Amino acid sequence: MGKRIVIALGGNALGKNLPEQMKAVKKTAKAITDLVEDGHEVIIVHGNGPQVGMIQQAMQYLVRQQPEDHVPFPLSVCVAMSQGYIGYDLQNALREEMLDRGIDKGVATVLTQVEVDPDDPAFEHPTKPIGAFMTKEEAQAMMDERNHDFIEDAGRGYRRVVASPRPVGVVEIGTIESLVQTDHIVVCCGGGGIPVFRTTGHHLKGAAAVIDKDFAAEKLAEQLDADMLIILTAVEKVAIHFGTPEQKELDELVPDEIRKYIADGEFAPGSMLPKMQAALEFTESKPGRMTLITHLLSASDGVNGKTGTIIHA
Amino acid sequence: MGKRIVIALGGNALGKNLPEQMKAVKKTAKAITDLVEDGHEVIIVHGNGPQVGMIQQAMQYLVRQQPEDHVPFPLSVCVAMSQGYIGYDLQNALREEMLDRGIDKGVATVLTQVEVDPDDPAFEHPTKPIGAFMTKEEAQAMMDERNHDFIEDAGRGYRRVVASPRPVGVVEIGTIESLVQTDHIVVCCGGGGIPVFRTTGHHLKGAAAVIDKDFAAEKLAEQLDADMLIILTAVEKVAIHFGTPEQKELDELVPDEIRKYIADGEFAPGSMLPKMQAALEFTESKPGRMTLITHLLSASDGVNGKTGTIIHA
Repeated sequence: MGKRIVIALGGNALGKNLPEQMKAVKKTAKAITDLVEDGHEVIIVHGNGPQVGMIQQAMQYLVRQQPEDHVPFPLSVCVAMSQGYIGYDLQNALREEMLDRGIDKGVATVLTQVEVDPDDPAFEHPTKPIGAFMTKEEAQAMMDERNHDFIEDAGRGYRRVVASPRPVGVVEIGTIESLVQTDHIVVCCGGGGIPVFRTTGHHLKGAAAVIDKDFAAEKLAEQLDADMLIILTAVEKVAIHFGTPEQKELDELVPDEIRKYIADGEFAPGSMLPKMQAALEFTESKPGRMTLITHLLSASDGVNGKTGTIIHA
Repeated sequence: MGKRIVIALGGNALGKNLPEQMKAVKKTAKAITDLVEDGHEVIIVHGNGPQVGMIQQAMQYLVRQQPEDHVPFPLSVCVAMSQGYIGYDLQNALREEMLDRGIDKGVATVLTQVEVDPDDPAFEHPTKPIGAFMTKEEAQAMMDERNHDFIEDAGRGYRRVVASPRPVGVVEIGTIESLVQTDHIVVCCGGGGIPVFRTTGHHLKGAAAVIDKDFAAEKLAEQLDADMLIILTAVEKVAIHFGTPEQKELDELVPDEIRKYIADGEFAPGSMLPKMQAALEFTESKPGRMTLITHLLSASDGVNGKTGTIIHA
């Protein structure tokens, strides 16, 4: 009856700063606990765009104020810190919600590294925005000081962009599997995982990148042999002709339809596109695997076939 | 043959900033892998005094620079971030050292909360210094801005002090036990654990405190029914008349001797005193339990009876 489910949590599950996060995780915990109550094994992956950007800026202020004591903090280290920052609130909200419903299971946040390929073309074309918007002057100072890349978002200012390579594999996969088998709800691959690549011998070197959490969740779901990947976001269903009078919400999709819609430019890069690509990859990785895309608060209804968009072979 | 061992790592195992940490964890990993190679189960607790202070200051700079976007970050949240920051480097160094020796075991960093008592008298008397030294003016500004407490260290400046309550219990103890049983080296209770106290229902609220890592390791060792607590530090053996011509290093100690030496003021508060108190508590908690205090690099020799100070009943 129970399925093994990997969940990818979108930005609305966490908010953009600490007060928003403390509020958002309560709702998120309810949605996830619904699935636990339905008898499913649940593994949670979350994004960290605003959070890792915030931490990276804070560490940069520290380096500027105390240059004799500190060197700049690599992005990989900031991702590690964001896993602690987010995991703490998320696991706590989950623990509380489950206990309030009489469910006595472990909740664990596992610090997770995810391997990427140093030859991934993404390193040549940074596209993933992190952190807060800045003025042109602030952005210029960061470009001069740290060689960071920036994009301008018309009307809203400048934002740092970093490479977003594809995940190759989850380093701590054995740990996550052990915890799932011992009846834990596991929070892992936070922010898509700490991006690392193999160098000589057994060394893993941190990469200046942020892995897309949807792709990290997809890879994790494959490695854990999950039955279902659930991508929770801000819309109830995937739509084509999105934002036009012809907008049409879809109850289900098969791989060939997805490929056609992607070719037609139906899905926005950095938004629905990576979700659809992840859904396609997972669904095609093994017969029987399905992906659900729906609103954060509709997770349980989606699994029960009442809402959301199901991607199946 | 193999013992279940909880290790408390001192400041020399991690260094004070990122470059120091990346270097120090390599030595630390060698010392710990020696114990793994000897066939022991190993669970690692580490301090975070310099690191949590650093993170807390960085987040404060962020709040000052972007007051419209952020509110001050509670110390408990900074401890969570420090667990990610330190755990990442430590688990990576351990993973690499073990694989280099052909040992294929999991290494996991578990985000850990440790319960404290809101009525602990420590909250009335903050004593634990965190973070960097400041000028009198900087310290005064923080006192005015955040109601923080400071102490003056003659000649070196001012440092923030926070409460250091005793640990009551490790919230994620079941997770840690599961991972030890599935053959993992576990890094947990980082910085003594994220300090939390129970409020109404099942809610855990973060506390403005830092738990001493020696006491957290002691509590963890009891809860895991460990055979041995090892406190690794910067000296080879515990000494009485420390730093005088009569200095005498001790090979072993029994509880009554420790109590006498503590009463005589032989052990410095914030340094050897909490280690001896933790050793006393663990050794007396159940027959057969022993504590070893020795230098970071002598862990394996200490367990094999070649060096260090053994505390036994």
